[in-house]
Amino acid sequence: MSDAELKSLLSDGAVATPSGRIVRVLSQRGPMSARDIAQTTGLAKSTVSTALTELRRSGMVVEGNGDSARSASVGRPATTLSLNPHAGTCVGLLFGMYHMQMIVADVSHAVIADKTVQLDPDYSPQAAAALSSQLIEQAYSEHAISPDTLLGVGLAVAGPINPIDGCVQRAGGVPTWAGVDLKSVFEHVLERPVFVDNESNCSAIAEMMWGAAVGYEDFVFFTLDLGVGGAIVNRGHVITGVAGGAGEFGHMSIDPEGPLCRCGNRGCLELYASFKEPLVHASKRFGRQMTMNEVIELAKAGDVGCRRLIEDTAEAAGRGLGIIGTVFNPPLVVIGGAMATAGELMLVPLERSFNKHTLIKRDDVPPDAQTRIVVGKFIDNDACMGAVGMVLRHYGART
Amino acid sequence: MSDAELKSLLSDGAVATPSGRIVRVLSQRGPMSARDIAQTTGLAKSTVSTALTELRRSGMVVEGNGDSARSASVGRPATTLSLNPHAGTCVGLLFGMYHMQMIVADVSHAVIADKTVQLDPDYSPQAAAALSSQLIEQAYSEHAISPDTLLGVGLAVAGPINPIDGCVQRAGGVPTWAGVDLKSVFEHVLERPVFVDNESNCSAIAEMMWGAAVGYEDFVFFTLDLGVGGAIVNRGHVITGVAGGAGEFGHMSIDPEGPLCRCGNRGCLELYASFKEPLVHASKRFGRQMTMNEVIELAKAGDVGCRRLIEDTAEAAGRGLGIIGTVFNPPLVVIGGAMATAGELMLVPLERSFNKHTLIKRDDVPPDAQTRIVVGKFIDNDACMGAVGMVLRHYGART
Repeated sequence: MSDAELKSLLSDGAVATPSGRIVRVLSQRGPMSARDIAQTTGLAKSTVSTALTELRRSGMVVEGNGDSARSASVGRPATTLSLNPHAGTCVGLLFGMYHMQMIVADVSHAVIADKTVQLDPDYSPQAAAALSSQLIEQAYSEHAISPDTLLGVGLAVAGPINPIDGCVQRAGGVPTWAGVDLKSVFEHVLERPVFVDNESNCSAIAEMMWGAAVGYEDFVFFTLDLGVGGAIVNRGHVITGVAGGAGEFGHMSIDPEGPLCRCGNRGCLELYASFKEPLVHASKRFGRQMTMNEVIELAKAGDVGCRRLIEDTAEAAGRGLGIIGTVFNPPLVVIGGAMATAGELMLVPLERSFNKHTLIKRDDVPPDAQTRIVVGKFIDNDACMGAVGMVLRHYGART
Repeated sequence: MSDAELKSLLSDGAVATPSGRIVRVLSQRGPMSARDIAQTTGLAKSTVSTALTELRRSGMVVEGNGDSARSASVGRPATTLSLNPHAGTCVGLLFGMYHMQMIVADVSHAVIADKTVQLDPDYSPQAAAALSSQLIEQAYSEHAISPDTLLGVGLAVAGPINPIDGCVQRAGGVPTWAGVDLKSVFEHVLERPVFVDNESNCSAIAEMMWGAAVGYEDFVFFTLDLGVGGAIVNRGHVITGVAGGAGEFGHMSIDPEGPLCRCGNRGCLELYASFKEPLVHASKRFGRQMTMNEVIELAKAGDVGCRRLIEDTAEAAGRGLGIIGTVFNPPLVVIGGAMATAGELMLVPLERSFNKHTLIKRDDVPPDAQTRIVVGKFIDNDACMGAVGMVLRHYGART
């Protein structure tokens, strides 16, 4: 099967055909049985069967999880089908202040390569594009994949992206990237379709496609880390905002008389709910520069001071999440960022604080009308996986 | 043309047909020319022309605005077409704490009757349904309309409506209505399809269908009155929330140490941005019980104290709207409630305060990426008109 054939199957026009819908659902959800495909797509079993015969004949769909050793050992349950991992690849790139991450994945979103490199602060978009090109070439060569299989590249960046012109906004992100049309810069160098979005929006896409929000059309993604941010998903779409600024939960001004924030406002949620200040306290206490992971590990091991730092931060975050709950009343909140790795130590005080400060209390409504709060599935690489997802959504699932 | 024919044309199944789409657009937007119909629906002019011939033959669509005197006097511009006002009627009912309002409108959303009656506090849903039935009968008889034309009844109520079971939630609204399935209660008495939503959601529907938000798929509706509330519209749909609680902007807790609110939380926006407190001050100053309208009229006439009350309230409201802006970054905010009648006296300080407290400042982005703030078009009867709109949307435009 040719690259052109795959592209045509994944393209918008084809998703109305049974084959297109099957490819889309396999690319989003991963391996599943023919029965599950019928259930998920709503197609008749006979239609699925006919389409699968054709897809398997062309080599697009293969039996098993793409991991023949494992699938051979599970006896003979309903045959699992997956996209042929060699049918196409996507690249996701995440650009932070001081590093970039690259994930190469096949269309069944199995990760082929995952690499992080450190960068000098204030690196230019042109330098980033050139480095990306180099890293991609290297990864494809190392893993003996033809560069021809590369369908597109997704970029996850800090700060809001203007949905009209695709440019990085002033507020947040790498300062030298403000006003730059990243899509053009990267397409010029990479010679592939490039899709750009804010990192939290990308994280939400990863959780929606394959993570903690599968099955939810509406949810809030809430990042708790050294920064605080998030994304809002409504009817299966990330709300971007007119200037790309939606979901910037960290900059809700909860105390207009409070300390000055890096954004220029006062008393932003991020000043109270990020782990920056707690880390200063922890470093003082232990007499050396501590990381979030260290503090969380110590807390898990029972250190009372580290537990308290997590609890207080979660309490503050819950106040902000309470406002978000009053505004949206979402069925689900997915917590991302390093704080999510603290699990119950963070989740219990967060939920208590959320319930205290939000309008509709847990006990006010039946269980199915309560807001669920869960930790994300892709905490370590959600934004970069979401950048991969953005490419797949474009080809297979854009509506 | 029969009622059944109209119902079939307005029903979900029919909106894919050219006739159905034309009826839908005329019911939502009101009278327009054949050319504008083609532009709005995206149908070919020849298709519109063929369908219109049939619709006019059957009596569903008529020339003019449904007001023959006025349309005869405007010379001979492009012929304006409208739905036959006698093709069907809708009723919108708004239930407040101490009053109910009824609007009878035809399918072209022209108001046939608009009546408000005072009620004893804590009236029961059953009593409200019986009274509604009586008022509807009376209005139809007075205006010599056949009750057979009544397509459905929309109810706008205070407080959140659970989108799963359609019941009124505990928080907000008439206390005795909590947990009641209003749809069932009213359908039993009125023997017509009944649609229920929160009053702010209804107001947003009115502004979206015929008011200040026409042409916007995404906007925030922000009510400033003796209470503070609102609604969020995304991709043409009101976001309800898992328990019907979305858009309760008045209960964002902006100061967790602040005074106790009627909802049980502390420091809710409503405590600072509603006109309740200012009215107490005004009443003290003038030595008698003042109304919002009186204060606004005095402010317009130049009274410095009344201007200051409006300004300070708008300033507080802008702080809350700043948070909403940071969360959604909407292209448009429509201000409803009595405060909207203060016009620039309210809008100028509100915009200044919003811009001060929100993340993306006006000057950060090009004009088309700025959040516009405007006053609503249906300030006096938005919720009740929206209840009418809810019925029309159900028949003609539900997606």
